[in-house]
Amino acid sequence: MTQKIQIGKLAMLIASLTPDELEPFSQQLEDVDYCQGKTGSMSMQKVISAVETSAKRNNIISEELYRETHALYHAILEALEGVMRGQIGAGDMMRTVGLRFAIVRGSPYEHFDEGEWIAVAFYGTIGAPVKGLEHETFGLGINHIG
Amino acid sequence: MTQKIQIGKLAMLIASLTPDELEPFSQQLEDVDYCQGKTGSMSMQKVISAVETSAKRNNIISEELYRETHALYHAILEALEGVMRGQIGAGDMMRTVGLRFAIVRGSPYEHFDEGEWIAVAFYGTIGAPVKGLEHETFGLGINHIG
Amino acid sequence: MTQKIQIGKLAMLIASLTPDELEPFSQQLEDVDYCQGKTGSMSMQKVISAVETSAKRNNIISEELYRETHALYHAILEALEGVMRGQIGAGDMMRTVGLRFAIVRGSPYEHFDEGEWIAVAFYGTIGAPVKGLEHETFGLGINHIG
Amino acid sequence: MTQKIQIGKLAMLIASLTPDELEPFSQQLEDVDYCQGKTGSMSMQKVISAVETSAKRNNIISEELYRETHALYHAILEALEGVMRGQIGAGDMMRTVGLRFAIVRGSPYEHFDEGEWIAVAFYGTIGAPVKGLEHETFGLGINHIG
Amino acid sequence: MTQKIQIGKLAMLIASLTPDELEPFSQQLEDVDYCQGKTGSMSMQKVISAVETSAKRNNIISEELYRETHALYHAILEALEGVMRGQIGAGDMMRTVGLRFAIVRGSPYEHFDEGEWIAVAFYGTIGAPVKGLEHETFGLGINHIG
Amino acid sequence: MTQKIQIGKLAMLIASLTPDELEPFSQQLEDVDYCQGKTGSMSMQKVISAVETSAKRNNIISEELYRETHALYHAILEALEGVMRGQIGAGDMMRTVGLRFAIVRGSPYEHFDEGEWIAVAFYGTIGAPVKGLEHETFGLGINHIG
Repeated sequence: MTQKIQIGKLAMLIASLTPDELEPFSQQLEDVDYCQGKTGSMSMQKVISAVETSAKRNNIISEELYRETHALYHAILEALEGVMRGQIGAGDMMRTVGLRFAIVRGSPYEHFDEGEWIAVAFYGTIGAPVKGLEHETFGLGINHIG
Repeated sequence: MTQKIQIGKLAMLIASLTPDELEPFSQQLEDVDYCQGKTGSMSMQKVISAVETSAKRNNIISEELYRETHALYHAILEALEGVMRGQIGAGDMMRTVGLRFAIVRGSPYEHFDEGEWIAVAFYGTIGAPVKGLEHETFGLGINHIG
Repeated sequence: MTQKIQIGKLAMLIASLTPDELEPFSQQLEDVDYCQGKTGSMSMQKVISAVETSAKRNNIISEELYRETHALYHAILEALEGVMRGQIGAGDMMRTVGLRFAIVRGSPYEHFDEGEWIAVAFYGTIGAPVKGLEHETFGLGINHIG
Repeated sequence: MTQKIQIGKLAMLIASLTPDELEPFSQQLEDVDYCQGKTGSMSMQKVISAVETSAKRNNIISEELYRETHALYHAILEALEGVMRGQIGAGDMMRTVGLRFAIVRGSPYEHFDEGEWIAVAFYGTIGAPVKGLEHETFGLGINHIG
Repeated sequence: MTQKIQIGKLAMLIASLTPDELEPFSQQLEDVDYCQGKTGSMSMQKVISAVETSAKRNNIISEELYRETHALYHAILEALEGVMRGQIGAGDMMRTVGLRFAIVRGSPYEHFDEGEWIAVAFYGTIGAPVKGLEHETFGLGINHIG
Repeated sequence: MTQKIQIGKLAMLIASLTPDELEPFSQQLEDVDYCQGKTGSMSMQKVISAVETSAKRNNIISEELYRETHALYHAILEALEGVMRGQIGAGDMMRTVGLRFAIVRGSPYEHFDEGEWIAVAFYGTIGAPVKGLEHETFGLGINHIG
């Protein structure tokens, strides 16, 4: 791994660990900006919207720059490819997701000019719209930003 | 989360944490069978083959039952959807992957008859076939087995 | 063909033949459990739901085991890939489907431990939501179960 | 079904039935032009090429018209979507296919001006490149031609 | 380029140029039938429907022949692959499109028997459902017809 | 269109017009950096590589920053989605492409902080690996950069 900060791994851990389990990583988290949230739905629209709103409300991205919304949007879509594994469009497929998500922004590379990047991670369950008829799912998307 | 054992989360942690970071999870790992490995390639064939070989050599799946190979194969493909995010076929896309993988087999559900399931996780880098021109990538696939 | 029972072929025949045409295969059908039904819609949700309901009502799968719902669900999705040929999501694409479906459960392999598998077949028409503006479509999905 | 001739169903039957099983359909087959063949490979190129060669050698399509090659090519690709179920590119996925195929050309619709259409069907096995580690697979593609 | 008329290029130019910019191509446009229109939506259904309606109202295709609707439909879908770049289903992805479209029908090939072909082009913007949060997008689909 | 410079449209025109046809747009081209080239292959690798090499050799992107390679790479992939229309992987599909490409870098938005963006356009033919058995194809990808 040639990166000084693994923003993807940090996003994955925030999305999936309990507060106690996350404790040992608290120092690494000081090097990045991040936020987290929850979303559950049969609609991809609501999932995307929940992440975008959280990113803006917590100042992880600038609300005024399309550039940053564009970078985040593609990171979300890539993360959803992992969550949905080839079939984006949960509701239409009779699947419902219950997800925790994390958004991490930082400078992963040594070289200063590589600038800032953003990672989006989802962890939770996917399954039939009936409690218990579900299994774990995970997704990670990464993009350059700023 | 209605599962008693989160085989997907465990697979993710094995694939992405350092031995020290994994230490606090050692007790949870006693409830499952698992193995891990590394693979780096521009060819999806080699990645799939590395995971299948590792699973059989470590007796995570039975070499003699097509049923188990079938279950593992689809878990690998689903994990690769997360790694490749919509474009399976690394070499053809001029991308190379350097991945650690973990295979976890266990009984995630309370109800005995839900039986065994298998999780495959990948964590590493994806990028141009030049060192440093890469970012993190992750994928998780889950299937019923046995 | 190394299988003793071709559950996929039987599912295809049940879905597409008339009762008279199916007559010569009646003996082969005694070796498997199966059911059939009809569904027509612009929504993939309704198609998936019709197959799942039929499978449970006819005791082809156990209503209480997520494991079996999971196996069936992926067999349905694979069959729909054939029906939709790359564009799952009928309604959103202005296409409507009129389908007969068959679900077949059996033990295709000689080796006892290969256990039970499930096949889902669709046959019917796909086209514009206007009668006659349509052509035939077919799909088959197969998974291990039980 | 509003069609007078079901070229898709006929293609499916030719590809999957034994000569004895196909016997009752011999009269229906007199209304269409068709040919059949076999192909086994880890490469989609070889599968596509086998079908194209067979179609031209048996005069199902005109070798000299790009128009007809274009119509056949898309029917083949659609049929392969069913065979591969979302992951076209067998070799790269460590899967091998053993397929019988049928190409049927005819006039399915009552209305004369609807003209000729072509159906391509595959039936066989898909699996690991080891005998027995495989299950059935099927695909059907249909296009207007001529 | 071995074609005598580039219907795809003409469709692209009609969809994206201003009337002034299109002026130098007016002579080439005399060799084809074409129409144009506008559509803006978060729903692929409405986009497809707008193009089909325009093609029929302007007599680019025959309303009575399924054959021609089928040819047009697949040309539209192919063009939308370029517009959506892998994620057809705009609304579900929280993306809205504002598009100009052009439909061109002509005989691109020297050889008379190659007959007529149809091209569909889209040009416009895709983005978040907020004015300005968008970038350009383009798509072209081509099929044989008639 | 809320953009002051349409880098996507310019890329499209450079890739598809003759020098004479492009003449009226020469003034608009002064506001952007661009280069163009040709590539023909059955391999997506070679197409991607040709564009990347051209972009670096003509200083459209910095050879030393992964950030810029990453931005260009995703713009190329998006453009190839339009070219291949759902089936990236030309050679494996028995299709060969002959393409002209254009890479345009500029500042499309009024707001200064939206910064630079990059557009990649392809125009040419796709078809069987036989001269003449081919039709036009086009693709456009856009990304933020710098």
